[in-house]
Amino acid sequence: MISKEEIAEKYKVIQNEITEALEALDGKAHFEEEIWEREGGGGGRTRVIQHGDILEKGGVNFSAVHGKLPEQIKKAFGVEEDEFFATGVSIVIHPNNPWVPIIHMNIRYFELNEEIRWFGGGIDLTPHYVDENDASYFHQELKSVCEKYSAEFYPKFKEWADNYFYIKHREETRGIGGIFYDKLTPEKAGISFQEIFDFSCDLGRLFPKVYTELVNRSRSKEYTEAEKNWQYLRRGRYVEFNLVYDAGTKFGLETNGRIESILMSLPEQANWFYNFKTESGSKEEKTLSLLKKGISWA
Amino acid sequence: MISKEEIAEKYKVIQNEITEALEALDGKAHFEEEIWEREGGGGGRTRVIQHGDILEKGGVNFSAVHGKLPEQIKKAFGVEEDEFFATGVSIVIHPNNPWVPIIHMNIRYFELNEEIRWFGGGIDLTPHYVDENDASYFHQELKSVCEKYSAEFYPKFKEWADNYFYIKHREETRGIGGIFYDKLTPEKAGISFQEIFDFSCDLGRLFPKVYTELVNRSRSKEYTEAEKNWQYLRRGRYVEFNLVYDAGTKFGLETNGRIESILMSLPEQANWFYNFKTESGSKEEKTLSLLKKGISWA
Repeated sequence: MISKEEIAEKYKVIQNEITEALEALDGKAHFEEEIWEREGGGGGRTRVIQHGDILEKGGVNFSAVHGKLPEQIKKAFGVEEDEFFATGVSIVIHPNNPWVPIIHMNIRYFELNEEIRWFGGGIDLTPHYVDENDASYFHQELKSVCEKYSAEFYPKFKEWADNYFYIKHREETRGIGGIFYDKLTPEKAGISFQEIFDFSCDLGRLFPKVYTELVNRSRSKEYTEAEKNWQYLRRGRYVEFNLVYDAGTKFGLETNGRIESILMSLPEQANWFYNFKTESGSKEEKTLSLLKKGISWA
Repeated sequence: MISKEEIAEKYKVIQNEITEALEALDGKAHFEEEIWEREGGGGGRTRVIQHGDILEKGGVNFSAVHGKLPEQIKKAFGVEEDEFFATGVSIVIHPNNPWVPIIHMNIRYFELNEEIRWFGGGIDLTPHYVDENDASYFHQELKSVCEKYSAEFYPKFKEWADNYFYIKHREETRGIGGIFYDKLTPEKAGISFQEIFDFSCDLGRLFPKVYTELVNRSRSKEYTEAEKNWQYLRRGRYVEFNLVYDAGTKFGLETNGRIESILMSLPEQANWFYNFKTESGSKEEKTLSLLKKGISWA
């Protein structure tokens, strides 16, 4: 069976492929790299791109950390074991142009006492303005990768994403969803350990392909100040989701992770306009109407 | 004994006094009022001021809500009772000028099954740049009000504020603290129910006095773009505190409160600059060095 070291190495290579592809996509800005160590064990390689032609702020973080699991996380996971190892690649990209969507991807592997072995991950898209063709393309691509491994993956993981990327207090999904899975084992997945790992690598490789396509579709579109303000407002929702609900953020903050790497998911600028109302018949209203669970995009 | 209805009425009058004083202070903008009802019972009167001469975004919220307490909050409170009543005034002000501090005040009264009766509240100051004279003035004023009621209040509630208004993942206090108290009863306070109530009203009345003084000390100071950016960054920390740690925000989100009233505490604009480092010897560095627990400001 592939070892945790080999998994980490492969994820590191995927980080390289992704940052290369994103630099090529942007054409102007370059990633800055920060190598960091975690006091409790392990460390990571954070790469952040800023003020690009299209990428306003984006982070592609690799980490492989280990140590003792804090009590509250053991409880939340419902486990007794407390020696953990976790490795993964985590990405959030905030573009300048409000017509280009925000994207997030994460693939991760988790071990407890070298006995429990889980994979988790997901990709989800957060357009400031929902475009049905883009949403359909995005979900089709995810569905194809899922179907290479199991017919059950896409419907199950798509529903999981709808429920996970949900801003409960706003009664809105974060965006148009995608896929999400967690604590995946060969038993639950019905495929081998190696295949689950391969699935996660395929998702990692799908990321630059779909985001390049989506960026190139909209990067040249002009936008107004009002559209920019709507982007800032939608980014505020993104901040709300990440700080109030996101499990990865919580895990990072509670295990004393590197704060700047965890919070690289936050946009450079977000706004909260008190009691903002969308105009009837507007494209903002249309977008809100599509931020719902259970829409069949694929 | 004063009834919950009388407490709510008095808090409403205090809201009036405060919004009048803040309009006079600003001299340009006026509060907009929104009367709202809560589905589970009760409602409130939210007043928000925006784009003033000095007040960029500020909310003064009165509410009196009641209903069934959700399970997770009963657990968090360690109580069996589930009929709750809560009333209070809650304020957050974000000024335009980075030399003027952010301020927060809250006074509240809470009843469970008409048996348990608690008061809670606090005032804390979050300067973007810490000025020792202002911090000292602010704490002196709080200390004076506390000492009218009990010699124990100020030291105890000051320490409570240091621990409460703390951004654990940043190892920073939110600002220079103030006072914080919760679940206060005559038994714990050593003074009567009426006196605890009077104490909360005195805090409500202290608010416009101290904030008027602090605003007038700094409102005419010029600022640079770099200072404005530092303000946006500090506001980002404020957002992190409110969404990750603040108990009032959590309570509101979990009891289906009115979202726009709960999140009126968020600034109009906040920024996250990746891996921002303060320059050695700078005023930003000095400010960070003063965002610590246990400083004797009074």
